[in-house]
Amino acid sequence: MSLKIKYADGTSGEMADANSALEIYRHSTSHLMAAAVHSLFPEVHLGIGPAISDGFYYDFERPDGFVEEDLKKIEARMKELVAQNLSFEPSIISKEEAIEFFNKQGEHLKVELIREKAGERLSCYRLGQLVDFCTGPHLCSTGQIDPDSFHVLSIAGSYWRGDEHNQQLQRIYGTAFLTPAELQDYLNQLEEAKKRDHRKLGRELDLFSISEEAGPGLIFWHPKGTRVRLIVEDFLRKELIHRGYEFVTTPHVARDVLWKTSGHYEYYRQNMYMFRIDDEEFVIKPMNCPGHIHIYKSQMKSYRDLPVRFAEFGTVYRYEKSGVLHGTLRVRGFTQDDGHIFCTPEQVYDEISNSMDLVLFIMKNFGFDQFKVELSVRDEAKKGEYAGTEEDWQMAEEALTQSLRSRGINWTRMEGEAVFYGPKIDVKLIDAIGRPWQLSTIQFDFTLPKRFNLSYIGSDGREHQPVMVHRALLGSIERFLGVLIEHYAGAFPIWLAPVQAVVIPIAERHQEYARKVLSRLTEAGFRAEIDDRNEKMGYKIRAAQTNKIPYMLVVGDKELQSGEVAVRNRFSGDEGALTLESFLEKIEGFVNNRSVRP
Amino acid sequence: MSLKIKYADGTSGEMADANSALEIYRHSTSHLMAAAVHSLFPEVHLGIGPAISDGFYYDFERPDGFVEEDLKKIEARMKELVAQNLSFEPSIISKEEAIEFFNKQGEHLKVELIREKAGERLSCYRLGQLVDFCTGPHLCSTGQIDPDSFHVLSIAGSYWRGDEHNQQLQRIYGTAFLTPAELQDYLNQLEEAKKRDHRKLGRELDLFSISEEAGPGLIFWHPKGTRVRLIVEDFLRKELIHRGYEFVTTPHVARDVLWKTSGHYEYYRQNMYMFRIDDEEFVIKPMNCPGHIHIYKSQMKSYRDLPVRFAEFGTVYRYEKSGVLHGTLRVRGFTQDDGHIFCTPEQVYDEISNSMDLVLFIMKNFGFDQFKVELSVRDEAKKGEYAGTEEDWQMAEEALTQSLRSRGINWTRMEGEAVFYGPKIDVKLIDAIGRPWQLSTIQFDFTLPKRFNLSYIGSDGREHQPVMVHRALLGSIERFLGVLIEHYAGAFPIWLAPVQAVVIPIAERHQEYARKVLSRLTEAGFRAEIDDRNEKMGYKIRAAQTNKIPYMLVVGDKELQSGEVAVRNRFSGDEGALTLESFLEKIEGFVNNRSVRP
Repeated sequence: MSLKIKYADGTSGEMADANSALEIYRHSTSHLMAAAVHSLFPEVHLGIGPAISDGFYYDFERPDGFVEEDLKKIEARMKELVAQNLSFEPSIISKEEAIEFFNKQGEHLKVELIREKAGERLSCYRLGQLVDFCTGPHLCSTGQIDPDSFHVLSIAGSYWRGDEHNQQLQRIYGTAFLTPAELQDYLNQLEEAKKRDHRKLGRELDLFSISEEAGPGLIFWHPKGTRVRLIVEDFLRKELIHRGYEFVTTPHVARDVLWKTSGHYEYYRQNMYMFRIDDEEFVIKPMNCPGHIHIYKSQMKSYRDLPVRFAEFGTVYRYEKSGVLHGTLRVRGFTQDDGHIFCTPEQVYDEISNSMDLVLFIMKNFGFDQFKVELSVRDEAKKGEYAGTEEDWQMAEEALTQSLRSRGINWTRMEGEAVFYGPKIDVKLIDAIGRPWQLSTIQFDFTLPKRFNLSYIGSDGREHQPVMVHRALLGSIERFLGVLIEHYAGAFPIWLAPVQAVVIPIAERHQEYARKVLSRLTEAGFRAEIDDRNEKMGYKIRAAQTNKIPYMLVVGDKELQSGEVAVRNRFSGDEGALTLESFLEKIEGFVNNRSVRP
Repeated sequence: MSLKIKYADGTSGEMADANSALEIYRHSTSHLMAAAVHSLFPEVHLGIGPAISDGFYYDFERPDGFVEEDLKKIEARMKELVAQNLSFEPSIISKEEAIEFFNKQGEHLKVELIREKAGERLSCYRLGQLVDFCTGPHLCSTGQIDPDSFHVLSIAGSYWRGDEHNQQLQRIYGTAFLTPAELQDYLNQLEEAKKRDHRKLGRELDLFSISEEAGPGLIFWHPKGTRVRLIVEDFLRKELIHRGYEFVTTPHVARDVLWKTSGHYEYYRQNMYMFRIDDEEFVIKPMNCPGHIHIYKSQMKSYRDLPVRFAEFGTVYRYEKSGVLHGTLRVRGFTQDDGHIFCTPEQVYDEISNSMDLVLFIMKNFGFDQFKVELSVRDEAKKGEYAGTEEDWQMAEEALTQSLRSRGINWTRMEGEAVFYGPKIDVKLIDAIGRPWQLSTIQFDFTLPKRFNLSYIGSDGREHQPVMVHRALLGSIERFLGVLIEHYAGAFPIWLAPVQAVVIPIAERHQEYARKVLSRLTEAGFRAEIDDRNEKMGYKIRAAQTNKIPYMLVVGDKELQSGEVAVRNRFSGDEGALTLESFLEKIEGFVNNRSVRP
């Protein structure tokens, strides 16, 4: 599909690249929305209105703000303007003319932008009554926009130029796709995402909370959330120990000296929390690396000791603006499933390969089978700006590439996306509704071994510098749990479920037997509850469904006599009567296999 | 035994109370030491010289300081002065006379003390050449001091009047006992304690370290130390869940508001670390209580939900002066095995009783079978200064007393030792060499439920305030591990040992078999190593003994052929050849029973 477009100089062209076409389509739809708003609410002043990764927005200055109902009116007016097939008409004028024109229109924000950003001549686009300062390109006319391909989504507060010291504006978000079918898919996904929102489910399932009093971005895990968290940690810990990692424990605070040596004090200071003890400055750790390095250095290492693999579920604290915090996904305190490998150059390939295997193993066990892999390498044009030698980079890229290739993994090479201290692999999981989540990372570090003067005695009896690799599988445990909640819409697989089964006595005379069943479940190591409230069975089953408990074990006269339980699966409904021991055996299998769905 | 003593007014008496007698004996020995120092080093100026809990000290001003060898000279001179049977001669003089006298002697520190502390008339004691400002009483003469009942121990830096802004002094520590046998017991214990010093063993066994760079009082647990720590935590966690606790996870930082509500901001601020985020003050948590309270409050509770028992291994940070920090025993960051019980008044007795049972169970499993229990209650004369009602205190004391009595536990009632917010039980463990360690505590809290406005809906449908109990079993995990190291002198029981067995191949041709043995051990879940260094067997066995590894599995030609292992127990020596499976079965038993000594 190719899109006819109009450049600022008045010439026309075709845009065949799908991504660029979509961006122009959205940008033009954003102007269309601005024109609609302008005709409905002539008193608004215009901010800016770009295309963004999943749609577009336009910022307006309007003291009274907008209300939800306005969105429908705006969308309806947009459709009318589409029907009128208005042209996007570009013109090139002088800066002076532009300032005079926008001043006359009362568009003081545009005037401010033009004064700062424009050259001597600049381009504007007219769409119906609306003239905007814009470099384009745009569609040729609104008739090119399918009236069923866009949707006005929401209103949010924003600040002029993103600066909280400036005046507040009203941002209207919309989205548009090249076809109505794509829009519908996207809207369905949005709807599905809303149902899966981990903040909503976290509250409903009593998994975690954030305290107004304690401050934003700090997660309190309630008993049920902590259960899931501990299961995740225990699983990971066992697997890491099995694969030759050694767990260590390092303090959450340390003197600034450590961070001056690491370089974080210089380059990362604005994200670090600092305080004083006596007359010295201390830092709440934003990373675990310097702590692991201290332990590495505490005893002289020989090549026979390598590889050294340290792991820690290390809670770190980093500054984030309160506006960007989002549930457990973006926070101010989080627990990295952190690991550092110190090895010889000869060991690098095996270590990277084993790390990739571990990532795939962990993902699979948590029920993720789709992912995107990115290999971030240097910007070839700016080689001088990176730490490490030419050989370091070649060795590292070779190991990363080779470990992906030999596993048949497809990857995208991200030129210039490496951090300055080394190349890396990032793995993004694709969740149940197709959203990507950045989780695992495997990163080389060519600076810290030098800064901390790390060494080992080689087989030649001389000192060498070890290669250092940072890697995290889940990334942040808080974030991962948020992703898990959204991926499973709160209905965790039985091995992760905070409550695996609820025993439901039908009447009071079944309570004693129900409690025996509960005891046996608990004794066998399962997480079970009893619902002995004085309510109807249907009510209790609905409650268990709402609480996303995988199994309901109903016990009445029949079960009491036969010594069985009537098993109800949250997904597939009745599974008939089973002896308790058969049921235990069955779910034990699901737990041990970490089955996604029983 | 009764001690003849001389009071400041010149009268004599008998002191029959053993504790007071020992204190006077030590105080007089301190003066004896001062007289000896003064005669050897006439240029010194005197600070103060009291008796302390396990001996005495005297502070001296001497710019050159003292060296180790001086201690022997001082002790020898003390014995000479004992032989001279010098009198302790008291006199009462006026403040003016005293100031004139000590000024003439150049004793400016004494002059400062007299100016500030003395009344119009004051007492001095002369001992040989030395006159000291002192209220006494003292022994009558040095002949009463057995020359084999005291020992000069060590030198340390100190500050005049304990204030680091004052001049530095030299503190000489000594000890004295009423009989030479008691001194010898004490010195033997000191010697034993030195061997068991967890700082020394922590380094030798590679368990933990403290980093100069990162700052004092912050522990880095190395792989082997973390293994022990995780075993302790896992054991405790399993037991707590089994006993109806729910684990929660709370952040390490929170806004000051939380601490203002709790009262810590007002009463505990000097121990809290504070920092800023944006324009607000935050605190690094010194306690976990407010976090647990937040979770309690996050949902309305009914009497049917109680008791609520929250547990967390929560790492807290508290200010301590660097001078008092000591290994892992006294630190600036430590992990409480914290728990909070919220219950109805009717549930209090059961909850306290279950907590006592848990304390005893945990202690026993860690190999402690002796303990001292203290019940701290109000000062009856100052009832008005405590939080909570008369009924609160009666109910709480009754529950605490009753839970001890019904278990046949002896306790000491500590009048006036309760904290203002409630009575408590403290449990001190007695270690292998008889030292007491304060570990477990069970404390009522009558303030926080009120300050945080906690409630539950009773069976009467009305709001009630729950009773809140803080309790910790190990107290601090860091401290407990330090105590464990000293108790076992680093030779942990097999269930706690970071390395449970080392496989020792006799020659190179046994290495393959040794590695098979190692694999099987690891696969069976044991923590094992191989010592495949090119060294003699005796050397490897000595290394394993030094590393306090419970079992050595030696494999040579014989074992290779029979498919067995030659088992050597660290304590009892050779145990003969066993098949690997029999050995596994054997140690599995020791691990499951948490046997102290296999």
